[in-house]
Amino acid sequence: MKQQVHGGDVYRHPNAIDFSSNINPLGTPASVIDAATKSLKQIAHYPDILYSELRKSLSKYEGVLENMIICGNGAAELIFSLVFALKPKRALIPIPTFAEYEQALTASGCEISHYKMEPDFNLDIGILEAITPDYDVLFLCTPNNPTGFLIEPEFLQKIIKRCKTCGVFLVIDECFLDFIPEPKAYTMIGALAENKRLFILKAFTKRYAMAGIRLGYGLCSDQAFLGRMNQVTQPWNVSIPAQAAGVAALKETAYVEKARQLIQKENTFLKQALKKLPLHIYDSQANYIFLEGPADLYEQCLTRGILIRNCSNYPGLRQGFYRIAVRTHEENKSLIRVLQQIFIKEE
Amino acid sequence: MKQQVHGGDVYRHPNAIDFSSNINPLGTPASVIDAATKSLKQIAHYPDILYSELRKSLSKYEGVLENMIICGNGAAELIFSLVFALKPKRALIPIPTFAEYEQALTASGCEISHYKMEPDFNLDIGILEAITPDYDVLFLCTPNNPTGFLIEPEFLQKIIKRCKTCGVFLVIDECFLDFIPEPKAYTMIGALAENKRLFILKAFTKRYAMAGIRLGYGLCSDQAFLGRMNQVTQPWNVSIPAQAAGVAALKETAYVEKARQLIQKENTFLKQALKKLPLHIYDSQANYIFLEGPADLYEQCLTRGILIRNCSNYPGLRQGFYRIAVRTHEENKSLIRVLQQIFIKEE
Repeated sequence: MKQQVHGGDVYRHPNAIDFSSNINPLGTPASVIDAATKSLKQIAHYPDILYSELRKSLSKYEGVLENMIICGNGAAELIFSLVFALKPKRALIPIPTFAEYEQALTASGCEISHYKMEPDFNLDIGILEAITPDYDVLFLCTPNNPTGFLIEPEFLQKIIKRCKTCGVFLVIDECFLDFIPEPKAYTMIGALAENKRLFILKAFTKRYAMAGIRLGYGLCSDQAFLGRMNQVTQPWNVSIPAQAAGVAALKETAYVEKARQLIQKENTFLKQALKKLPLHIYDSQANYIFLEGPADLYEQCLTRGILIRNCSNYPGLRQGFYRIAVRTHEENKSLIRVLQQIFIKEE
Repeated sequence: MKQQVHGGDVYRHPNAIDFSSNINPLGTPASVIDAATKSLKQIAHYPDILYSELRKSLSKYEGVLENMIICGNGAAELIFSLVFALKPKRALIPIPTFAEYEQALTASGCEISHYKMEPDFNLDIGILEAITPDYDVLFLCTPNNPTGFLIEPEFLQKIIKRCKTCGVFLVIDECFLDFIPEPKAYTMIGALAENKRLFILKAFTKRYAMAGIRLGYGLCSDQAFLGRMNQVTQPWNVSIPAQAAGVAALKETAYVEKARQLIQKENTFLKQALKKLPLHIYDSQANYIFLEGPADLYEQCLTRGILIRNCSNYPGLRQGFYRIAVRTHEENKSLIRVLQQIFIKEE
């Protein structure tokens, strides 16, 4: 049977505050729930396999052509369909990072090389030399999950260029880019038209707190490649409520801006408060914070009604690494109180 | 960009009555829509990746162990994950049948042999000799899509035995079995425990008219194989509304019985009425009817507000083959009226 090794398992811990998944702390917009609710009247029908309305909305929202867009049952599905379409023999992954890249690559029989991000989990210029024609694909995540570190746009441009020279397909996961102070300065969407072998992954999940309805998308200017991704996927993968929710969500620009401001304020608040505790805090720019602490911190928190993400199962990490989501001020204060209790008790 | 080659495209034909997809004519039960609606309040969370409650409900409903169940984003997703997990080199498919088996097998690089169902699209005993150790997998569909022909249980038992002897993995698609007069007499669920390399595919889509919410399941006693299917799939593939809708749907036994009776009555009505027209009608036992007619029947119907399934793109078929769903009496009468108009005009 399936194993639960990810964050967000509110089903086994229904009474805990969930700091383990990185969701917009404002909760799902009412307009999104309304649109999904209305769409349920239509579920006797199959979904629109072309997701025409959603595609049109996304094209406007991202400023890209409609034929550069592919949607999935969450961004996670697109990672798998991308890998099954690309059939890479050798992949390069800087670690630590989101585990599903490796999961999908392993499932497809791909050989994986890790590029250790050192020191302190920062991607350094050594990656440029590490990218060679021996590799078929490179996965990058910015801001990285679980560290929250951004890759500077000038550096990313160099990586894109190096990948192009070496014929390496580049996947940039921008699923967490929406909540940093200046997403537009960091996105590589502008590089898509010039780089056919560049794929950018985006999600509705975090931006609009709609993880449970499953909707993600990818952007790529290689239509033949998107066609291959469709070939390895069932035609009806994006449900009717997900399509309706997505169209409604893209109109919620004020909500996203409000969330971004809240998150930046609370990111600062949390980091300052956490630094007063016997924990090593990494300087995340994202809506989650990466830290190092005692080996039993997950259990200590859970006993006190707080669910955090134990990152010990990330390749490249070990026991003692954790990730916490940035939530509302009240919730963040609860987290700090609980951590204070834990460390006072220990002293 | 994606092509729409399937039935059910109500999006490009919003004003037509949809006879092209085989959905329960009673429409989605109110309890299913209610459960999905309530669940939307929880969509800020990720879905339960173990779908524990749904799994428990399915285990009771089907009388199988919980660890024999795998759920998917529609049965169609499971066809792809099954193929990607099995990695077959050579597959045997009796044709004509549902196109997604071949789609998934082709996407995974599998070589496909067709077994032509002759005469008149019936599966004959020749299949027993056609099954050899050269094949890795055989796909069967009962009642078959698009013909509506059932495979007799004694014959299926022989096929199961033959597959076991030859080491061929057998997939039986029972997605349309719910609406035949005696589903229990035809299902091979009882053979699962003894046959690890048997996989039975089932869907909520048709049984409860909930195609748009995406929920299907598979049954298999080989836990290691189900584990491999999970490895080639994202962990969060079954959405929160789909899980909630599924749990509610399984309680709707009276609704399914009512639909079965309606469909059997209307299947007979439609076949009798259709036989009076210059069409060749096949003796479907299912909630859809397969027929042969003029090359432009699809367009002729569409002009008159009726969407039927053009089956000319099924491997093994050619222009002039169609499938129509069995719907409510009023709708079926509309279809007959339209067909009468078409043929009177032609005379």
